[in-house]
Amino acid sequence: MLLVLRLGHRRKRDARVSTHCGLVARAFGADGIIFSGEKDEALLESIRKVNEKWGNGFKASYEKNWRKVIKEFDGKVVHLTMYGVDFREKIKELKKEKNILVVIGAEKVPAEVYELADFNLSVTNQPHSEIAALAVFLENLTGLKKKFSGKLEIIPSPKGKKVIKKE
Amino acid sequence: MLLVLRLGHRRKRDARVSTHCGLVARAFGADGIIFSGEKDEALLESIRKVNEKWGNGFKASYEKNWRKVIKEFDGKVVHLTMYGVDFREKIKELKKEKNILVVIGAEKVPAEVYELADFNLSVTNQPHSEIAALAVFLENLTGLKKKFSGKLEIIPSPKGKKVIKKE
Repeated sequence: MLLVLRLGHRRKRDARVSTHCGLVARAFGADGIIFSGEKDEALLESIRKVNEKWGNGFKASYEKNWRKVIKEFDGKVVHLTMYGVDFREKIKELKKEKNILVVIGAEKVPAEVYELADFNLSVTNQPHSEIAALAVFLENLTGLKKKFSGKLEIIPSPKGKKVIKKE
Repeated sequence: MLLVLRLGHRRKRDARVSTHCGLVARAFGADGIIFSGEKDEALLESIRKVNEKWGNGFKASYEKNWRKVIKEFDGKVVHLTMYGVDFREKIKELKKEKNILVVIGAEKVPAEVYELADFNLSVTNQPHSEIAALAVFLENLTGLKKKFSGKLEIIPSPKGKKVIKKE
């Protein structure tokens, strides 16, 4: 099981960034994303709709108590942070794990998260984007091998757009 | 030269997503980002500030005429789109190029972009995030080798935060 936990969601400010996190988690092979912070039904719904159209059983859910999610997770907890160790040093080791929870923050991540995580890993030590960190980490972890089978399917094309609709 | 062109920026709606694009371009080794769409001084300023603190000569600029940027670029133009061919099929070839312009869109990308680009490449054929697509493509292209030397520098750490301040 590969899950993502997104901390500190704020309904107004983070709507789009958190949606991107959810869609990246899905497209890059995670089984689900758990949002913490402010509860946001519209956010969950937007990700569910993409899943309905584009396929496969990705789950988006909300959990107020993020500590519980981390503490009860039966596997390795990987916190992505610009302060951490280069993710490439640990990726081989992590590929052998069955269950991984990837934790990504919003503005301020509580110090406790650094302690609770099994690994604090960085995708560069420069400030950029939790979406980017999640994407690069998951791409390296999963190799983008997940197959999707939805109502919509793209035929990769060197020019233009080719989409198949199945109903 | 490795540049990023971000199309169709909208001041209100895209402020944060475009900022993430700029910071990813910088952290992942590009030399600059050109924003098109609505002019947004605050966006340029926020990226310049990060560069000032964290180092190296990354350039964020605005250009209304995106067609001109693409047409006059002396190198290969890579448009990242979910409709394109798997980027992994072309990455070896692109690593040999000296000058690359990576084009990423906002909501709707004009059909013309697909024609003007030398390559239309996808990072999965699923809907997700232009930030994620940019990050994964650049990581594969550059190997995250760029060194930064700024007023702030992080010492990678397995727990907590270690930052050196140089003034």
